[in-house]
Amino acid sequence: MFVSIEGIDGCGKTTQIKLLAEYLSQLGVEFTIVREPGGTRAGEEIRQILLHKDFQLCAESELLLFMAARAQIVREVVRPALESGRLVIADRFMDSSVAYQGVGRNLGQKVVQFMNSFVVGNTVPDITLYIDVPADVAMSRMRKEKKNDKIEVESLEFFERVRKGYERLMVENSKRFVLIDGRQAEEQVHEDIRKSLSVLIEKRKPNWR
Amino acid sequence: MFVSIEGIDGCGKTTQIKLLAEYLSQLGVEFTIVREPGGTRAGEEIRQILLHKDFQLCAESELLLFMAARAQIVREVVRPALESGRLVIADRFMDSSVAYQGVGRNLGQKVVQFMNSFVVGNTVPDITLYIDVPADVAMSRMRKEKKNDKIEVESLEFFERVRKGYERLMVENSKRFVLIDGRQAEEQVHEDIRKSLSVLIEKRKPNWR
Repeated sequence: MFVSIEGIDGCGKTTQIKLLAEYLSQLGVEFTIVREPGGTRAGEEIRQILLHKDFQLCAESELLLFMAARAQIVREVVRPALESGRLVIADRFMDSSVAYQGVGRNLGQKVVQFMNSFVVGNTVPDITLYIDVPADVAMSRMRKEKKNDKIEVESLEFFERVRKGYERLMVENSKRFVLIDGRQAEEQVHEDIRKSLSVLIEKRKPNWR
Repeated sequence: MFVSIEGIDGCGKTTQIKLLAEYLSQLGVEFTIVREPGGTRAGEEIRQILLHKDFQLCAESELLLFMAARAQIVREVVRPALESGRLVIADRFMDSSVAYQGVGRNLGQKVVQFMNSFVVGNTVPDITLYIDVPADVAMSRMRKEKKNDKIEVESLEFFERVRKGYERLMVENSKRFVLIDGRQAEEQVHEDIRKSLSVLIEKRKPNWR
């Protein structure tokens, strides 16, 4: 079973993945967390290029580097983990490229989706938890945490476009997308995530027949 | 004017580009030579990943990294050079990805061509000089020169597939492709290349009105 967790920066994704990991560990569920572009040797090198402050990457190149890292992590980590029966949780996956580069950076949703299919094949998440918060709420949270990642210095308009991109994806992929209200308190968001994954987690508890 | 020079490894491309560069310099023609994946800061970093001996890149990732470097060099080097009126000579360009990754590595010609259009837009070579040699001739030349690049340790079947890929491209792009017989002596190949570019070079001599 393959779960991806998506949402704009500042939606609380990192905290929620930490809480989910703790919960799964307590239950004894075997899981692997992946976070692009890292997670493979090639991906770590690609991350260095994406984070470089000395030169400006064009939007096309940025997208292609994320895709290259994705191709590698799918084959080196995600597929082997799924084949061995582990639960795989992706902190962002293919939908991030559509929302951020396709819609946010205006490269086009279609072109990014075409590349995603080429890169992931049938390794598509079974469930995508989309943690939704308005762009202004996300930005004020980020300001409090003083994050200064490349992408986190973007404008409000950018994050509003990205959120629109996610909303479109949710409509087009209603079977795998689960909407989580990220404006709620951390514990409530965690509770909603547990509920969304409850059937699948039950099946994976070591004492489950 | 944008010229790309293509052919399988061992076709004599490097020597011919050197001879062409000397000839253009003598004439006083202003030109820029580009060679992917290098030529930009990002591209040099990408080259390091492609040449890494410590980890194996999947074919998809290899293709995407070449594409990322291409997106960058097109915007940083090729377009500005063309806009300033310089002759741009590419030591391999978009057709290499189709022949090597699309056909040679069986990723599919269509998918690579789709990505090329996304990456280069309308920055397509005006003339593509395709230096053709049979795969066995190319391989015995490479063995003499003891080259040991990643790609140059491929099998004869691989290079035969790549050559087939180039032949298909030549048929589909007959207007921009010029076939150069690479089995001839170096001087004769150079002579053929000069002839193919003669009209365009005449126009660019400094004393040409």
